[in-house]
Amino acid sequence: MILTGAELSKAIKDEVKKKVNSLKAEGITPALRCVVSSDDKSTEVYLNSIKRNCEKVGIDFAKILTDEKRIIEDVKALNVDPKISGVMIMHPVPKGVDEIAVLETLNPLKDVEGRTPQNLGKVLLGVESFTPCTAQAVMELLKYYKVDLKGANVTIVGRSTTVGKPLALMMLSEHATVTVCHSKTRDLKEKTKSADVLIAAVGRARMFDADWIKEGAVVIDVGINVVDGKVVGDVDFDSVSKKASVSKVPGGVGSVTSAILMRNVVEASLLNRR
Amino acid sequence: MILTGAELSKAIKDEVKKKVNSLKAEGITPALRCVVSSDDKSTEVYLNSIKRNCEKVGIDFAKILTDEKRIIEDVKALNVDPKISGVMIMHPVPKGVDEIAVLETLNPLKDVEGRTPQNLGKVLLGVESFTPCTAQAVMELLKYYKVDLKGANVTIVGRSTTVGKPLALMMLSEHATVTVCHSKTRDLKEKTKSADVLIAAVGRARMFDADWIKEGAVVIDVGINVVDGKVVGDVDFDSVSKKASVSKVPGGVGSVTSAILMRNVVEASLLNRR
Repeated sequence: MILTGAELSKAIKDEVKKKVNSLKAEGITPALRCVVSSDDKSTEVYLNSIKRNCEKVGIDFAKILTDEKRIIEDVKALNVDPKISGVMIMHPVPKGVDEIAVLETLNPLKDVEGRTPQNLGKVLLGVESFTPCTAQAVMELLKYYKVDLKGANVTIVGRSTTVGKPLALMMLSEHATVTVCHSKTRDLKEKTKSADVLIAAVGRARMFDADWIKEGAVVIDVGINVVDGKVVGDVDFDSVSKKASVSKVPGGVGSVTSAILMRNVVEASLLNRR
Repeated sequence: MILTGAELSKAIKDEVKKKVNSLKAEGITPALRCVVSSDDKSTEVYLNSIKRNCEKVGIDFAKILTDEKRIIEDVKALNVDPKISGVMIMHPVPKGVDEIAVLETLNPLKDVEGRTPQNLGKVLLGVESFTPCTAQAVMELLKYYKVDLKGANVTIVGRSTTVGKPLALMMLSEHATVTVCHSKTRDLKEKTKSADVLIAAVGRARMFDADWIKEGAVVIDVGINVVDGKVVGDVDFDSVSKKASVSKVPGGVGSVTSAILMRNVVEASLLNRR
């Protein structure tokens, strides 16, 4: 089976559009602001894709150019601006700035990426909060394809604060047995081959071929790597898809992630309306 | 090897005593308050042991009896009271009260048990914060006995918000490969037997005997169970100690945990002095 994000992503975006329209009828326009300190090309590409997604669903988008002197004040201003629903702090922050301190400044109710300590702590506590969008997308894609996680052996390769770690906690809440692997893991292949569900989130192009995968497993590819101008995942799709269910890259987790970000902006506009 | 907490616990408490004395010379007395809503016997026993520990190191201790109507206001008052360094919210909170809401109210700088969302989120982010004392005690006991965690296969049995989950994140920060198991785990024995380091935190008396353990493993027993009036761990000590290194119960993790709580109160009094 091939897991695509297309239908799920469309369903989320359709729902978002509807909600945006009804909010606009009340005189509220959900608004997202991206706090940016660098204008390098990859940031620009990413921002443009967010902007396009916002336009498609009717969310007001703008970037806020900041620097090391103003960033905390800029975030504080956005925190209290009633017109702003959601705020993204673009990584990296300016040199010499403590990124955690910036995240701690951000109002958790506007933290649509689920990056503040407060929201991440709630992921650990298993209570509702904004969750890291990519980790959330993995969970919703698995749910959409009715993958039973209860008691399943889930191996996550990658221990980032945006994917691996929060995803491990979310998997535990769904009663999976979770193993988190990374660059220091010994006998990695043994751990991926015993997985009922494998999450590849390492950022190495086509690292996992069929030899790493158990027959009949479900493989979620979180990787986004550019090889010869083409986007490929961490999984060797052609080889793995012959023996396991696998998500597409592009068109898998990524498309759901961007839809969830939009949904979170709308959700934030509701939370901040109260 | 038998891992005892005695020496480590004594070293921590000696350091705490010294700091308390120097703080008192400055006119500051570190003070701990326990917010209690129940006066059942097990809470009483626990509170008395905390009180005794406080007395030994010179920390001012008192319990604050609260109820469902006052608990949030009581916590808010302690948050801003300059005489109070640390606050513990005793579990369970009164019926009908949202425990997470109470924890969210608590000033993270007075959260000496590391239970607030903000401090737990920082554990995920891998930055300094008050961490759950029992999980911290496990890490420090392993460090004290120079157990190398880098690349080690660590199996944690138990997924609580105070031990299993934060401990998994802390182990990842030390570059261990971490598997978290629980009641829904299949083939549990396979997972414990492959562990270089096993953390038993399930709360079932002597559940793990030698048959569950790899030869030469390090086993940390977090369990506290009462059997025939005697405190025993989750590990069958007599059987396991013949083939693996194992921590004692009582006199292992527990004694370090209570020392760390005292250290956190002193640390909090320094943080809140600023």
